[in-house]
Amino acid sequence: MSSSGIVKPQTYMLEKELILDSGKKLKNIDITYETYGALNKKKDNAVLVLHALSGDAHCAGLHKKSDKHPGWWDAMIGKGKAIDTDKYFVICSNVIGGCKGSTGPSSIEPETNKSYGLSFPVITISDMVRVQKKLIEFLGIEKLHNVIGGSMGGMQVLEWMTKYPEMTASAVVIGSTSRLSAQGIAFNVVGRNAIMSDANWNNGDYYETKAPDNGLAIARMIGHITYLSDKAMHNKFGRRLQNSEKYGYDFKTEFQVESYLKYQGDRFVERFDANTYLYLTRAMDYFDLAGKYGSLSQAFSSVTANVLVISFTSDWLFPTYQSKEIVSTLMSLDKKVSFCEINSPCGHDAFLLEYEELTDLVFNFLGNI
Amino acid sequence: MSSSGIVKPQTYMLEKELILDSGKKLKNIDITYETYGALNKKKDNAVLVLHALSGDAHCAGLHKKSDKHPGWWDAMIGKGKAIDTDKYFVICSNVIGGCKGSTGPSSIEPETNKSYGLSFPVITISDMVRVQKKLIEFLGIEKLHNVIGGSMGGMQVLEWMTKYPEMTASAVVIGSTSRLSAQGIAFNVVGRNAIMSDANWNNGDYYETKAPDNGLAIARMIGHITYLSDKAMHNKFGRRLQNSEKYGYDFKTEFQVESYLKYQGDRFVERFDANTYLYLTRAMDYFDLAGKYGSLSQAFSSVTANVLVISFTSDWLFPTYQSKEIVSTLMSLDKKVSFCEINSPCGHDAFLLEYEELTDLVFNFLGNI
Repeated sequence: MSSSGIVKPQTYMLEKELILDSGKKLKNIDITYETYGALNKKKDNAVLVLHALSGDAHCAGLHKKSDKHPGWWDAMIGKGKAIDTDKYFVICSNVIGGCKGSTGPSSIEPETNKSYGLSFPVITISDMVRVQKKLIEFLGIEKLHNVIGGSMGGMQVLEWMTKYPEMTASAVVIGSTSRLSAQGIAFNVVGRNAIMSDANWNNGDYYETKAPDNGLAIARMIGHITYLSDKAMHNKFGRRLQNSEKYGYDFKTEFQVESYLKYQGDRFVERFDANTYLYLTRAMDYFDLAGKYGSLSQAFSSVTANVLVISFTSDWLFPTYQSKEIVSTLMSLDKKVSFCEINSPCGHDAFLLEYEELTDLVFNFLGNI
Repeated sequence: MSSSGIVKPQTYMLEKELILDSGKKLKNIDITYETYGALNKKKDNAVLVLHALSGDAHCAGLHKKSDKHPGWWDAMIGKGKAIDTDKYFVICSNVIGGCKGSTGPSSIEPETNKSYGLSFPVITISDMVRVQKKLIEFLGIEKLHNVIGGSMGGMQVLEWMTKYPEMTASAVVIGSTSRLSAQGIAFNVVGRNAIMSDANWNNGDYYETKAPDNGLAIARMIGHITYLSDKAMHNKFGRRLQNSEKYGYDFKTEFQVESYLKYQGDRFVERFDANTYLYLTRAMDYFDLAGKYGSLSQAFSSVTANVLVISFTSDWLFPTYQSKEIVSTLMSLDKKVSFCEINSPCGHDAFLLEYEELTDLVFNFLGNI
């Protein structure tokens, strides 16, 4: 069982109207979050964990005893783990635009009493972080000991240390980038297209009808290919067949990799909202610190955090050269930055798998700030 | 204008029943092909060009004067070019299962007078080559001076030199593999799923109704990402926007890479049949010389051809290590083999772009067999 035991998601409502990057306004925003460990008296032991595209606020512990799986980063968070809950007060909040409690396109719009659907404003990584800041302030924390996250979570970390340096004592950016590449945008485009081409999508208004499950499943399948590496897929599945030693000469599911992808697609639609997939991938498309601030140097000029950047050798979605760009820019500005490229065949998914190496790095980094 | 001038596709009908790898039978098979240059008296100057997934028999010249584009490999085939039509008699045939003249799922089934659709038998790379052999025999050629092709065309080349060594004097395998990787299968799976999830697909029976254009367009978009490299996409599009300098904060086509992919998807459905996409990708899934013969060494044991293998540094769909596996196996068997990895940022598409390097290699190789 998880060392964090049973946890209960909480929700903070931000009543005050927030102006988003798009210029649109949003109010009465629900922010769902979980916490593990205890905030000390000085309120200086808080670690904010930021989740990736398909993650949520439930990063450790169980919701009920019978849960088969703990939160998504339980291996990293708990007593004596990389983020030690005996020492730190860990907070993880669901991003806005999400579908796991925080306000997003599937939430009920107060004015209409119907789900927002596409009337939900397009959000950015910066908007997600803007809302997280309100939560941190609500919790009475002036400065976070650390913000940490992988993938889209790493984008939020970069945004935190860039935009709110006075609140960010240290930052850990894992398998991420300061701007999404053309190839990254391209994969998002195809995933969104699959959803928006689904006959059930109905311009985002499907909450009382059939959901665009086929489209969302295809988007997820594409995602899964990009999360694994060529080698990881070879090791995991190779060309092995599912139930036979001979080809079936038809279009039924036959290869193990085929079965895996279809399974992942089918499971995903049970727990995820297609519109959220559109909103979160669009937020990633728009993420570009150099574009926003003029250059990456200008973006990072106000950074005061002690930064640790981690990449993985076989991650081709957010390749090491993108992490190195962050590191070399911070170094050129004389900022405190450490970098480690972990040797892993697991591809982008390594941030959810390489716990031994990650624990060594993160445990020591957090203890030495 | 193309040096090959106006060419006319021809069709040879193979009346005799053919037994396919699946055990199913097919008769009255149309094989559409084009030829360029002249067959010499000894009939020993024939070069067979084999096309990739979305290619066809029209690899050089124009069909009519007003054509905007020549055949797909016109830069390689013609007077004084890599495959010099002053010296060689060049043949290119459309594969069976295709949708450009040769018998495939969109062809009319004689028994029913309706399009085959899914009643068309699943075919393999070996079946494609089996049919090509009949065409070559019909043309009175006992031994091909060379067989050459890239990608799926390269798989056919490998099949030719393995299965019909007595007919293959030399072979050029470009950006290909002796067996499709798990990642390659995975991309095919997602593309097929997009087609088969399209409400218009109707289990392949859509020739008299609306075609599954959305699904086919998505499959093509995925394909295009895999044909380019991260760097090629960065160089070609970067994060540039289409019509504006500011984000639109919506889900309209906005990034140049987004516009490019949608354009490629939309154009493809005008010229390609969705069922053919299913059949040809399945044929690629099934291609595995080591699996078929027990090992790659056993597969290549009877090879007598002089072989040239070419790969591209940035091709991540058929990476260099897969070409090297072919080369090292042929070398271990003391076969005549040369290898070149071309330094190119163009990804898998390089076999349709890096004409200068390809011309040097192929021109010299063909002249020295």
